[in-house]
Amino acid sequence: MEQHTLPLILVINDDGVDANGIKALTEVARHFGNVVVVAPSRSQSGKSHAITFSNPLRYRQTYHSAGLKVYKVHGTPVDAFKVASCDILKGQKVDLLLSGINHGSNTSSSLIYSGTMAAVIEGCLNGIPSIGFSLADNNGHSDFEPYKMFVYEIIYYAMRNQLPPDVCLNVNIPPVAKEEILGYKITRQAMNHWHEELEMRTDPIGRPYYWLSGHLGDEDKGEDTDEWAVRNNYISVQPVQVDMTAYHYMDKLKMWGL
Amino acid sequence: MEQHTLPLILVINDDGVDANGIKALTEVARHFGNVVVVAPSRSQSGKSHAITFSNPLRYRQTYHSAGLKVYKVHGTPVDAFKVASCDILKGQKVDLLLSGINHGSNTSSSLIYSGTMAAVIEGCLNGIPSIGFSLADNNGHSDFEPYKMFVYEIIYYAMRNQLPPDVCLNVNIPPVAKEEILGYKITRQAMNHWHEELEMRTDPIGRPYYWLSGHLGDEDKGEDTDEWAVRNNYISVQPVQVDMTAYHYMDKLKMWGL
Repeated sequence: MEQHTLPLILVINDDGVDANGIKALTEVARHFGNVVVVAPSRSQSGKSHAITFSNPLRYRQTYHSAGLKVYKVHGTPVDAFKVASCDILKGQKVDLLLSGINHGSNTSSSLIYSGTMAAVIEGCLNGIPSIGFSLADNNGHSDFEPYKMFVYEIIYYAMRNQLPPDVCLNVNIPPVAKEEILGYKITRQAMNHWHEELEMRTDPIGRPYYWLSGHLGDEDKGEDTDEWAVRNNYISVQPVQVDMTAYHYMDKLKMWGL
Repeated sequence: MEQHTLPLILVINDDGVDANGIKALTEVARHFGNVVVVAPSRSQSGKSHAITFSNPLRYRQTYHSAGLKVYKVHGTPVDAFKVASCDILKGQKVDLLLSGINHGSNTSSSLIYSGTMAAVIEGCLNGIPSIGFSLADNNGHSDFEPYKMFVYEIIYYAMRNQLPPDVCLNVNIPPVAKEEILGYKITRQAMNHWHEELEMRTDPIGRPYYWLSGHLGDEDKGEDTDEWAVRNNYISVQPVQVDMTAYHYMDKLKMWGL
């Protein structure tokens, strides 16, 4: 008798295992298969693709019910992926990796600082169809309920259409009422960069320390970008590649005379 | 009377300000302009594009001579860039960013874990011509002296030819005797991924902890890759782009029906 096994879905994030966003994503994911959550024990925002190999890692299981196991890793989102694939899910084929829902936008150059998207890129490098979701609202108490139907829809279409092995998705949702969302836009990464400020303060024993803050610029005025889409109430769906080679410059570089 | 000012060159790395590699790179850089070194206070290997905004940053100057200032930042390589541009070099135009020389290869997917290359990508995002150098030898005591002439040559050609604003360079040097190096190859990023292992140990009070280690696979057999070049005694010069959009998949994604 043929056995039908449900797809195995790995859920990760960078806001930590207790964030509202990953709970909402997990609820949607459970409609599509057996879900295993392996996420950082606390916020790892802005940790990008960092990995931990100079210090030991620890992890432990926190929850177990039919079709759902939850683990927390004392490390980065990419550490969480590696612990999942090397140990927790060792020898099992992961059919889908979902990351998020991030509390805050991952459009434009935020993509490269994002731990949420680093987990997605790591999945893609390992041949797993991978999608990252972000709600463009930094509020830690956001209500993700209204956006779950869009997340469902994207997962549904991704499973039906199959992402190629070298492409993953960066989905950004505008933080507006569900009925104000105008639909999906397939976008490119806006070429804006962060404008930082460093605020000096003085500690109780008189030594300076600095807080890094900033805002994303709006240098790129294109109407085909992820930034434009989110600002204009569309859900941005950006295909992301893991090959960073600048092919368009190879011929010119060959002419440098090196 | 016209004033000729020397180019301003920012030198960063991820192995920390005291590493041999950054000292060698600084010596070469000083032939081309006024050098400011702003580097992490200790090793930040594998920290990728991580930034510090949930904790304060600190930094201090450690050395000052004519044409050379050295600062150490208690943070990641990208933090070092941000401290340099927001404070140390505030209002000054950086003409060139050099990162490295990394103790270890940054070919293939190592590029995305690398703090050395993250500083380069950050420079590029900010419109600065940026080059990362790595010696494919993890030995912390490598002798960089034999490779300085190649670093000189690449900087010379980069300054003469001018990198476009959206492209930076990832240079990897094979760890062989100078006379065995066969020349430069313009390469693409090999599509190999890391195969990790997680080794469990038990701490003195009986709790498990894990060491993450691994090796880079050789799935990509192409002879036009950075990996192939370094393994065959060529210096790999890879043009890297900061736009991660998978343009080749946009039309297909539009046909998903979202």
